[in-house]
Amino acid sequence: MSKIRLRDIDTVAPENLDKNTAKKEFKKTLKKLDELQNLLYAEGSQSVLIIIQGMDASGKDGLTRDVFTSMNPQGVNVFSFKEPTPRELSHDFLYRVHSQVPPRGMIHVFNRSQYEDIVVTRVHGIIDDKTAKARMEAINDFERLLTRHNDTHILKFYLHISHKEQLERLEERMENPKKMWKYNANDIKESKMWDRSMAYYEEAFNHCNEVPWDIVPADQNWHRSYYVAKKLEHLLTHLHLKYPGMKK
Amino acid sequence: MSKIRLRDIDTVAPENLDKNTAKKEFKKTLKKLDELQNLLYAEGSQSVLIIIQGMDASGKDGLTRDVFTSMNPQGVNVFSFKEPTPRELSHDFLYRVHSQVPPRGMIHVFNRSQYEDIVVTRVHGIIDDKTAKARMEAINDFERLLTRHNDTHILKFYLHISHKEQLERLEERMENPKKMWKYNANDIKESKMWDRSMAYYEEAFNHCNEVPWDIVPADQNWHRSYYVAKKLEHLLTHLHLKYPGMKK
Repeated sequence: MSKIRLRDIDTVAPENLDKNTAKKEFKKTLKKLDELQNLLYAEGSQSVLIIIQGMDASGKDGLTRDVFTSMNPQGVNVFSFKEPTPRELSHDFLYRVHSQVPPRGMIHVFNRSQYEDIVVTRVHGIIDDKTAKARMEAINDFERLLTRHNDTHILKFYLHISHKEQLERLEERMENPKKMWKYNANDIKESKMWDRSMAYYEEAFNHCNEVPWDIVPADQNWHRSYYVAKKLEHLLTHLHLKYPGMKK
Repeated sequence: MSKIRLRDIDTVAPENLDKNTAKKEFKKTLKKLDELQNLLYAEGSQSVLIIIQGMDASGKDGLTRDVFTSMNPQGVNVFSFKEPTPRELSHDFLYRVHSQVPPRGMIHVFNRSQYEDIVVTRVHGIIDDKTAKARMEAINDFERLLTRHNDTHILKFYLHISHKEQLERLEERMENPKKMWKYNANDIKESKMWDRSMAYYEEAFNHCNEVPWDIVPADQNWHRSYYVAKKLEHLLTHLHLKYPGMKK
């Protein structure tokens, strides 16, 4: 597998993709996803874990809303991992994520995840390189456990926006009354550590790639949601899901 | 590390150990354990996981009662893992144990554990050899996670009784009104699969030995409890626990 270098990957949609066509296709895809999710739930033998990572304002919440709102909430759960609580910190770093993985039949979405523990923590100097390496190994072990031992299919999306796009979005948060609540004084400080964040993200992508990462061009919201919906559709259609017959 | 062969290991206490001396020593040890556990709790930076495995009637419940009753229950939790529920089965086999591991400061006791999933399941032909091997690797990964990433100290005890001793104990369960509730019609059936159980246990001990196993001669209850208490005391005294000073 070739190494992921973020600076070599576009943050904008491919030129040959027309926005209106993509939007129409997106709507169709959502309908298919609804059906496929229902099938996954009915079959009850496999599960899907969707991991969403990205810098502040990269569109994680928006993506979650766009793609998963139209599915049956009985079969889809979203978990947002914030800064760990003291109770969570009293456990190994995978404890809180393991407790929220999807049982058979379910789709679980992680809005932020175990990858915060090897990126944000490094940016802030909370863990050293040796600990980061050991954690990456533990993450590989963990993802292997889910994949091998519970037929869990994992999709990992990094919402890739340019630094310029991020700054514009953060500014809008300060000015738009409907978005102010999302503004956090720390965001600007964090944004200044952009290059370090990119470097640590790259390392995470290249070390934790037994389940490969999808780098999503995310400067345009319509493209980000379209891209992820199509990937999920592709996965689900290839699971050969079938409605089970009558219970014996 | 030399291979564990159960048939080469005594099920009875060493001859040079006097029962009365051991019992007196055991009482002293319990007092020390109470203090050490308090210290572990106060310090709040390390944790202890005690895994107890053994055949039916090998004394797992008795051991738990003997050793842990006198400790502060705020700092000690016991988890008995029974046959998995449908909900537990809808997850990977480590999900239910991971959710019960000790946070910093705590002692957790697993009465049965993840090792049931590679021994009992094999005895009953529920999983094949390939799955068993993959599970053993996953158990090693899991124990490494706890040890490396959360300063969890793991003690693993196999309560080693002879087949003859087991049969006598099972018979007593059928006859003693105070023990009848523990009797299960399946126990005798299980007992017939003794040799296979021993073989699968041995394989588990020799594959999952990053954290080494303690094979406890357990035909005599007094020896079993004495042995485990001393091992726990040894561990706790070597953690260099200190009462933390005033909070800053």
